[in-house]
Amino acid sequence: MPNIAIYPGSFDPATNGHADVIARASRLFDRVIIAVGRNSQKQPLFSVEERVALLQETCQNMTNVTAEPFDGMLVDFARGNGAKVIIKGLRAVSDFEYEFQMALANRHLAPDVETLFLMTSAHHLYLSSSIVKEIARLNGDLTALVPDAVAVALRAKFALQPDELRSERLP
Amino acid sequence: MPNIAIYPGSFDPATNGHADVIARASRLFDRVIIAVGRNSQKQPLFSVEERVALLQETCQNMTNVTAEPFDGMLVDFARGNGAKVIIKGLRAVSDFEYEFQMALANRHLAPDVETLFLMTSAHHLYLSSSIVKEIARLNGDLTALVPDAVAVALRAKFALQPDELRSERLP
Amino acid sequence: MPNIAIYPGSFDPATNGHADVIARASRLFDRVIIAVGRNSQKQPLFSVEERVALLQETCQNMTNVTAEPFDGMLVDFARGNGAKVIIKGLRAVSDFEYEFQMALANRHLAPDVETLFLMTSAHHLYLSSSIVKEIARLNGDLTALVPDAVAVALRAKFALQPDELRSERLP
Amino acid sequence: MPNIAIYPGSFDPATNGHADVIARASRLFDRVIIAVGRNSQKQPLFSVEERVALLQETCQNMTNVTAEPFDGMLVDFARGNGAKVIIKGLRAVSDFEYEFQMALANRHLAPDVETLFLMTSAHHLYLSSSIVKEIARLNGDLTALVPDAVAVALRAKFALQPDELRSERLP
Amino acid sequence: MPNIAIYPGSFDPATNGHADVIARASRLFDRVIIAVGRNSQKQPLFSVEERVALLQETCQNMTNVTAEPFDGMLVDFARGNGAKVIIKGLRAVSDFEYEFQMALANRHLAPDVETLFLMTSAHHLYLSSSIVKEIARLNGDLTALVPDAVAVALRAKFALQPDELRSERLP
Amino acid sequence: MPNIAIYPGSFDPATNGHADVIARASRLFDRVIIAVGRNSQKQPLFSVEERVALLQETCQNMTNVTAEPFDGMLVDFARGNGAKVIIKGLRAVSDFEYEFQMALANRHLAPDVETLFLMTSAHHLYLSSSIVKEIARLNGDLTALVPDAVAVALRAKFALQPDELRSERLP
Repeated sequence: MPNIAIYPGSFDPATNGHADVIARASRLFDRVIIAVGRNSQKQPLFSVEERVALLQETCQNMTNVTAEPFDGMLVDFARGNGAKVIIKGLRAVSDFEYEFQMALANRHLAPDVETLFLMTSAHHLYLSSSIVKEIARLNGDLTALVPDAVAVALRAKFALQPDELRSERLP
Repeated sequence: MPNIAIYPGSFDPATNGHADVIARASRLFDRVIIAVGRNSQKQPLFSVEERVALLQETCQNMTNVTAEPFDGMLVDFARGNGAKVIIKGLRAVSDFEYEFQMALANRHLAPDVETLFLMTSAHHLYLSSSIVKEIARLNGDLTALVPDAVAVALRAKFALQPDELRSERLP
Repeated sequence: MPNIAIYPGSFDPATNGHADVIARASRLFDRVIIAVGRNSQKQPLFSVEERVALLQETCQNMTNVTAEPFDGMLVDFARGNGAKVIIKGLRAVSDFEYEFQMALANRHLAPDVETLFLMTSAHHLYLSSSIVKEIARLNGDLTALVPDAVAVALRAKFALQPDELRSERLP
Repeated sequence: MPNIAIYPGSFDPATNGHADVIARASRLFDRVIIAVGRNSQKQPLFSVEERVALLQETCQNMTNVTAEPFDGMLVDFARGNGAKVIIKGLRAVSDFEYEFQMALANRHLAPDVETLFLMTSAHHLYLSSSIVKEIARLNGDLTALVPDAVAVALRAKFALQPDELRSERLP
Repeated sequence: MPNIAIYPGSFDPATNGHADVIARASRLFDRVIIAVGRNSQKQPLFSVEERVALLQETCQNMTNVTAEPFDGMLVDFARGNGAKVIIKGLRAVSDFEYEFQMALANRHLAPDVETLFLMTSAHHLYLSSSIVKEIARLNGDLTALVPDAVAVALRAKFALQPDELRSERLP
Repeated sequence: MPNIAIYPGSFDPATNGHADVIARASRLFDRVIIAVGRNSQKQPLFSVEERVALLQETCQNMTNVTAEPFDGMLVDFARGNGAKVIIKGLRAVSDFEYEFQMALANRHLAPDVETLFLMTSAHHLYLSSSIVKEIARLNGDLTALVPDAVAVALRAKFALQPDELRSERLP
């Protein structure tokens, strides 16, 4: 039976931290399915189709990795794909606590699906999709922060943004 | 003088974790008043009247427990009810830090009112009102997560929700 | 070369905790520039001009301290002012994690600008701008929480607020 | 039935942080029994008899507070004294995690005994028995750190210590 | 190529929390090797041979699990056994921070070996080898805390201990 | 008045993480004095003279940095050297909590001496003196972990150690 892992997230957009977790997971499992959440409570910068396409371009050299949109219960998506593992990347203590609660809730809903945590590379500890969007909005340097395809997409997205969408601020 | 404790929260809706804290508190104090915050900054799923009613139904066998709506300062509500204790349940470190700051602020405002922390049962560590709402929205299994009355109310609430309100996603 | 430090924040409004950090920084550096974020993602209670004016009044006896509005990249603002230091106050573990990520991101963008952390006084550990606004909204006692000018401004602001803006609740 | 609380610890020696928790507890419960651990894995500075005596002197004005040595299981001590509450003071997140595990273990052993957590005063957040011993050893100022009786005992203890016991260092 | 995982620890003694992690890992990997640290800096209660034997008895029904003593570098042990995965169980934030540093150090030493973290069951969050030893020493109830073989061994070990080894105290 | 900072620690031995903090501090202050604790409660691997010499060799190109042994109160050492700043490097939340308590204690003892925290480089997050000693003991690769002089000294130290000192284990 192939060993299949689900890597869920909103990936709005994917960062080099995500790409690092995907590469590690692709070496450990027969198949990795990136589950891109279709509808987020907050308005995403990229549509789910754009986010899936950027991940597919980023992972095109990893033959056992695919990206798909998903909605509904994550554990149902995992079971529907024959996966018994959910992969999450950890950066910090605050990540850990939230992920701990989600993993316990998912275990309650589906005891046969196990959540495994991978450590993000130390180089990517400070990376998050929201920090990356903020730097892009302020025309900061994206080198080494996101995959090339994502950098291009971020530049295009913010070049198109009306001024009032550019008025937020790095906290 | 009776020993009265206030247990404040938004309870949108009450979970089995809340019910566990209430049962523990009811054994320690002569009287426990559940203070249900009337107006929350975020739009609640249940009105304050619904939330109070669900708590009353949940606690109907604990004769020293009542539930009431409240607004204004929590320490004023405590003093107005002759309570010298505020009860809070703790699940995790992030809870602890926020509650620590609230408790120090309330002590500044009312040095005569003490905040006491109870440990939630280990079985309920992953429970929160928002996770419960999310599972209900996705038609997941609510068994062992919420009191029976709350499960019924959640099912009714989400059956009535228009489609666009169901489009959010378990993160 | 003078030793210049930037102290960034939204200061909506400044608290005695902020004032404590500013006083400590003013003793360590030749010049301290308080960088008041112009546009926050959430709607501020005070305009950036009001926030700058309140800080200037609060710091009028510290001759090496100024307050200015800013937008754009914080590290650009620092470099533009010849500052090689960003000052941040720490209260709690959750502060620390967020600030840790911001400091690593800023170091990536500008390795020549160092972030230094100061410990807030123990008396101010529970203070935050949002708790202060909440207490003001509920007509609670602001003594020892905010500088006098801020207390006056908060009272004026909430006296003018229509009723529906007063309906939120201390969590 | 009187409401009895146990406040356990090693109290080697009691600090003003402990005294603050005791005073708060004495206002909430009919009777507070300070349970002074007889044998600690590390060599204590004060014998259990000295530690009990210092607490008795510190609490002599609180008529509902007593101090006693104890060994064995804490929950057995609580039950033997008719107490259904164990009181613990919290200062920091690291305290919280350890106390969380101990409280869950004690609940497993004795579900009828509840652990309640009190917040230490902000003024005493940095206080611990080991920091106090270190300051005493280096002849630092103990004012506002320990009860008067403890300050006298610490001075006497370190005046008698041979030089080699004084050679450790504040980290 | 079989998928082999190493589960390292001192297991002095194994608890039901360890057994839970082993059972989860045995369902995810072709083979699980429990690596029992031979020499610990602190004096262990059970010899490494005893600890290995207790784990073998505990895991006798899991045909893909073995237990072995180890010393030296963990990453060398992993490579020597053809394992590309190290498994660790997480209970709490303090675990997480220590394990985070160890995982980053091991990744520096052996980038081809990945550390994966599993969540301990909520029922076992309060369990640790040291708490279990403490409860055994005080003749407390070990039911549901340790595998049967470990309970027998703990009872035998403490029945044989001279009195002075029984004099420590539950903190 | 020159701006002098004290960087205290046991440095047993100095790592590249320490060297990184020293280099950052040397760019911010007129003079940096590394205060090497003479007597630690645990037996150090290197004598204080060795530790000072290794730091001096490591910092020989930073003309405003010196290393000195110290004992007694850190705030007295700071005042005796005309320093108003103590520098500490932060890696993780557990560091932060301990350092927070020490900084508050030192502020109580000497309000005129301020503790400033620097963020360790992300590359050095997993580094600690004890992990480095452990890797050296097991003959692991020290490249990029410690300054060259320290690597030589560690190799020499462990080549000389009798076997029984080599029997500890990487946890």
